[in-house]
Amino acid sequence: MKIAQVAPLTEAVPPKLYGGTERVVAYLTDALVELGHEVTLFASGDSCTKATLAPIWPRALRLDSSVKDSFAPLFMELETVARRAHEFDMIHAHLDYFGFPLLRRLGVPAVTTLHGRLDLPELPPLYEIYRDIPVVSISDSQRAPLPHANYVATILHGLPRDLLRKGEGKGGYLAFLGRISPEKAPDAAIRIAAAAGMPIKIAAKVDRADEAYFKAVIEPLLGHAEVEFIGEIGEHQKSEFLGGAAALIFPIAWREPFGLVMIEAMACGTPVIAFNNGSVPEVLDDGLTGFIVENEAEAVAALAKLDTLDRTRIRSQFERRFTAQHMAQAYVDLYARLARPLARRAVGR
Amino acid sequence: MKIAQVAPLTEAVPPKLYGGTERVVAYLTDALVELGHEVTLFASGDSCTKATLAPIWPRALRLDSSVKDSFAPLFMELETVARRAHEFDMIHAHLDYFGFPLLRRLGVPAVTTLHGRLDLPELPPLYEIYRDIPVVSISDSQRAPLPHANYVATILHGLPRDLLRKGEGKGGYLAFLGRISPEKAPDAAIRIAAAAGMPIKIAAKVDRADEAYFKAVIEPLLGHAEVEFIGEIGEHQKSEFLGGAAALIFPIAWREPFGLVMIEAMACGTPVIAFNNGSVPEVLDDGLTGFIVENEAEAVAALAKLDTLDRTRIRSQFERRFTAQHMAQAYVDLYARLARPLARRAVGR
Repeated sequence: MKIAQVAPLTEAVPPKLYGGTERVVAYLTDALVELGHEVTLFASGDSCTKATLAPIWPRALRLDSSVKDSFAPLFMELETVARRAHEFDMIHAHLDYFGFPLLRRLGVPAVTTLHGRLDLPELPPLYEIYRDIPVVSISDSQRAPLPHANYVATILHGLPRDLLRKGEGKGGYLAFLGRISPEKAPDAAIRIAAAAGMPIKIAAKVDRADEAYFKAVIEPLLGHAEVEFIGEIGEHQKSEFLGGAAALIFPIAWREPFGLVMIEAMACGTPVIAFNNGSVPEVLDDGLTGFIVENEAEAVAALAKLDTLDRTRIRSQFERRFTAQHMAQAYVDLYARLARPLARRAVGR
Repeated sequence: MKIAQVAPLTEAVPPKLYGGTERVVAYLTDALVELGHEVTLFASGDSCTKATLAPIWPRALRLDSSVKDSFAPLFMELETVARRAHEFDMIHAHLDYFGFPLLRRLGVPAVTTLHGRLDLPELPPLYEIYRDIPVVSISDSQRAPLPHANYVATILHGLPRDLLRKGEGKGGYLAFLGRISPEKAPDAAIRIAAAAGMPIKIAAKVDRADEAYFKAVIEPLLGHAEVEFIGEIGEHQKSEFLGGAAALIFPIAWREPFGLVMIEAMACGTPVIAFNNGSVPEVLDDGLTGFIVENEAEAVAALAKLDTLDRTRIRSQFERRFTAQHMAQAYVDLYARLARPLARRAVGR
């Protein structure tokens, strides 16, 4: 199949550091190429891919301080994709609703994966207008605040099988990995570790928007000898960081649409202690890849049962459910299903 | 002609207070109706128009704190316009480049008036891609940083003939009207008034982005007995405020694309002392409707020559060049010119 992958320009594909959407697009794109498809990736020019790169803007916008209006490059991307639409059997966009009015008029089958939160009050009327636009949710839970969109599949994320390697979990610490923000609740992770009498390492970036939260809530907790803040880490450091941890603490305090870090931990054989919120019950197999808990006390109790979990079986479950190849095959099946009825419709409606 | 006017949703059409673009759209729309055209106005639901209102969102977004993502209503508007495109002979958009990828694919003639600054570094590559999209500049000067766009006309703004009435200029003060911001340079206006030994009244809103500038630069100047800060004023207060002033001081410190306040002053018969920047030489007739100066000293000298200007002739010049009817007729001529060649092209290119 000839497939266009249309990525946001905020981060490179894959991102140099943090950035969920562009990372998933990178994994999906490379896996589609490995499955034998002809893929063109529309993305920032500093992206790195096994597909053919169609660069829209030289650098990822987050790192390009010369750009004052980040929507201008996005509208260059939309038109570029539109002009080349006829080259593809399927256009797969990751631009939220920004592609909707255009994609439906190109005469080529198109689908959009929704990567973000869907609980904003202006989305239901928007999706009322676009109720026939096919979209993919990244968990069933993600759909709850916006039930009437035209979901054609839920496809969970995946990682390249060999991106991370299994570790032994012998580092003698718990791990927290993510952004420092109230939704990710690193403060709860620190309290859980303290109550369990275990050291915790926090690998996290602090966005400018979250600096006040970091200063007010997290910094005071860092004085403790058992809490180590190691800042933002790159991909190459994750195997060691996650693989050495006894468990990943994921006390998520919002409806997380997916939560990549859970499957990153699984790829390292590391169990996940997660709050029952958002996608967590769809991603974790309770009692196999971790424990799903309702509160901090239950999390502490779960930590006492870690030796009932088997790191080899956790890694196997990752390989069974969460590889990029698995994700890509699910998308290929979806593309085939969507291409057929659309191909019969009139072009340029 | 059946004409769609597509307004931004940030402010109502016309805006309750400040807001240039939506105000011009309001004047143009009503004037087109008065010229006998069938006009549909796509805008926020609290707009007020002689045309048929197609409400997209109940309230202007600037006043609707419930909206977290202001692009969602914009994308509702784009799709709504696209679905109704076949009803119109001409679609006239005021959405900057946000309509470009869609408008060119609707099979209906469309034109976009560019209301804002065009000197951002990402615009030249954007317009390279959209170089065939017809756009209207609101002054010739506006085009300078972006010379390669497909300009089909410059059409200066206009005001309803009877919106403001001629005043006698007997209030014994100079006027400044606009936003408090470094580009509008109210500090220069205050210095000019002081040097001329005349009182000045400042009618201006302070945007949140400009609060620091207001506190640091403007507030210290307000202690002076000859400087009166009266805050933001509404349309109904402008005749009195401008009409009572001996002159409007417009010491503009950036490439102002148009500068509505200059023609508002002219409608009140009030001369304008303006810095030679942006659209100023296209809007003012030096020695007739005001004086165009290069610096503060020249502005002070010009104030000594105010009695050489005739308020009745200033008002006449406004009526000759800057009524909404005049503006609307220029757009009708343009619509007719654009509709003909486009109608011969294939639909849905």
